[in-house]
Amino acid sequence: MKWKKAAVAMITMVCALSLAACGLHKKSTSNSNYTTTGSAGRNYQGVIEHGHYRVSKARGVNVTQNSNQYNLKSFETGLTEVSKKSFSPKSYIFQEGQYLDTSEVQRLLERRSSSNPEGLNPAKGKSSNPNPEYIQQLEEQDFVQQSGSSLKLKGMTIGIGVNSEYNYQKKSDGPQYSKNISNAEVKRQGEIAAAKVLKHIRQKKGCKNIPIVIALYKQASDDSLVGGSFFAYEKSNGNSLSSWHDLNYKTTVMPKASGANTTNSDNESDDNNFSNFKSQIQSFFPNISGVTAQAQYKNDNLAGMHITVTTQFYSETEIQSFTDYIAQAAKKYLPNGIPIDIRIQSDSEMQAIIFRNAGSDKFQTHVLTSY
Amino acid sequence: MKWKKAAVAMITMVCALSLAACGLHKKSTSNSNYTTTGSAGRNYQGVIEHGHYRVSKARGVNVTQNSNQYNLKSFETGLTEVSKKSFSPKSYIFQEGQYLDTSEVQRLLERRSSSNPEGLNPAKGKSSNPNPEYIQQLEEQDFVQQSGSSLKLKGMTIGIGVNSEYNYQKKSDGPQYSKNISNAEVKRQGEIAAAKVLKHIRQKKGCKNIPIVIALYKQASDDSLVGGSFFAYEKSNGNSLSSWHDLNYKTTVMPKASGANTTNSDNESDDNNFSNFKSQIQSFFPNISGVTAQAQYKNDNLAGMHITVTTQFYSETEIQSFTDYIAQAAKKYLPNGIPIDIRIQSDSEMQAIIFRNAGSDKFQTHVLTSY
Repeated sequence: MKWKKAAVAMITMVCALSLAACGLHKKSTSNSNYTTTGSAGRNYQGVIEHGHYRVSKARGVNVTQNSNQYNLKSFETGLTEVSKKSFSPKSYIFQEGQYLDTSEVQRLLERRSSSNPEGLNPAKGKSSNPNPEYIQQLEEQDFVQQSGSSLKLKGMTIGIGVNSEYNYQKKSDGPQYSKNISNAEVKRQGEIAAAKVLKHIRQKKGCKNIPIVIALYKQASDDSLVGGSFFAYEKSNGNSLSSWHDLNYKTTVMPKASGANTTNSDNESDDNNFSNFKSQIQSFFPNISGVTAQAQYKNDNLAGMHITVTTQFYSETEIQSFTDYIAQAAKKYLPNGIPIDIRIQSDSEMQAIIFRNAGSDKFQTHVLTSY
Repeated sequence: MKWKKAAVAMITMVCALSLAACGLHKKSTSNSNYTTTGSAGRNYQGVIEHGHYRVSKARGVNVTQNSNQYNLKSFETGLTEVSKKSFSPKSYIFQEGQYLDTSEVQRLLERRSSSNPEGLNPAKGKSSNPNPEYIQQLEEQDFVQQSGSSLKLKGMTIGIGVNSEYNYQKKSDGPQYSKNISNAEVKRQGEIAAAKVLKHIRQKKGCKNIPIVIALYKQASDDSLVGGSFFAYEKSNGNSLSSWHDLNYKTTVMPKASGANTTNSDNESDDNNFSNFKSQIQSFFPNISGVTAQAQYKNDNLAGMHITVTTQFYSETEIQSFTDYIAQAAKKYLPNGIPIDIRIQSDSEMQAIIFRNAGSDKFQTHVLTSY
């Protein structure tokens, strides 16, 4: 089996590294073979070998897994957040997945067949009523710690993206059909896949006894303007996954599509705040500016926003003035205490950025000028 | 004359505004007709009327003036910096130019003729050896202060962009020719144009006695990857411009084109620092990352940099790791005490930004994630 060979080769390589002692959050000594990316403590440090980043063994495969790139970005960013619950950036160094390689991930994501018994998706069945492909993407993150002069694998996270809809054609060039997949089914299929992936990983050398976190993600539909959300995770030290932790996460787009239902009163006040912000800034110039947002909810509380403002600028002074004005409006209308960024764009090029990190009360602004 | 009518109409409008008292750096009261964009004190506040930004009377004309957009951006940003020397953001409110309108600026930038005696550029002369078009762009900035219940014009800056090369064809569809324009000629032509523009502005109502700053800018060539520089300015309270202040500004691109001469040893050590930074980060991924910079010198000292790093990313974790790594390398290799920003791009889309403002010792990083 190819993956075993690759994994063994990788582990051999890792073990062969003669690593100089180098503490976390410290600069590397000049004769060390690995160092780490710097970090402010909130983010993971990553592994750098001889000046090169240790990239994933399945590098690039994730890009092809999603026709909606919001799902990809949100999946990867969200997966790192879930990892932090079990593997603190203060104690663990992040390493891109080194145990699942590209062809292995591709095979896992294909339909089950006699030549691919480990495929996580069911056989197609009848063309007129095919079984959905439930599992859409898969990603591995490794967490290592220094052990003597080497880095040793101490934990792993596997993210599994499960489709909430299945799009298919009964015959090629025929019309598009779509099957909705219920939340209960998304959960069930995610848990089935999780058990199989856990078993698959446990067979690898070095992965028998480490804690493995499996995180389940519900993909947004292909036409969504925001990605999906993680809805459950479990950390397993053995072969079973029995007590899933629910994650009550939700993503949404603002302004709300007309006719959409408000799910609770919190959302409604958030929508109103955003509407006030929007109407405050969209008439700044004679041409109306577009103002949209992606919002994330955790346990029904607004947890963060990515706002995009698009307009036509006619001078650098207009960009500077608009940026200052938006920062003022953001402070006035947008909720405190959550991370927010506002991207100010023109002709699909970013002209300025305003952001506030988690916990901070102050917006940073930066206009992208030129000499 | 059209512009007079427009100017009079404008002044009437400004005077007609019934403005509530509203101090600088304060929130507007609810019944005021104007307010200002917020600012951190380093930037100007701009004039907002009934929620709308007071845009330039010549809005949009500048965009058509430059075939090299670096010249446009650098001209406008640089003009604001020159204005700050005479009109402090602490005492003056910025207003986009309200006295020169679009058609007026267009006529000034055309060649002189019997129907356009005020044209700043000479008649063409012989097609086989045409006179250059020296004056390329023109922009007005107004500086106002509150006076009773209205905003009153208290100063003006006019930027004049002078070409350093003139590109022409002897006959249409013929080959391109180019004439180099010497620094001495750029200065001479800039000063001639400045005197004419000053005279033109002084005829306008409200502009007879205000201080007017004229700033001269040398345009970079059309194929330059960085804009030009301001090289002189003068503040005049009357009709004469006699004692120009030289600005020893220079822009350059890094890494230096091979074979380019180093003008002094300072530049050479800056180039070396940048090269070290570049080689530290360009091999981070298996695919080489592009690393280029625009640099600005003031009095032969490096005064700021805009760095662009372009690479192919395969995951959000790669973007986060690379960003942290670059911030670390920037702190180690790039000079302290000057504003620097680093734009991290992939597929011409910005993925992250690292920046340090003037005077600060700390780089801010922000990764553009998505929900």
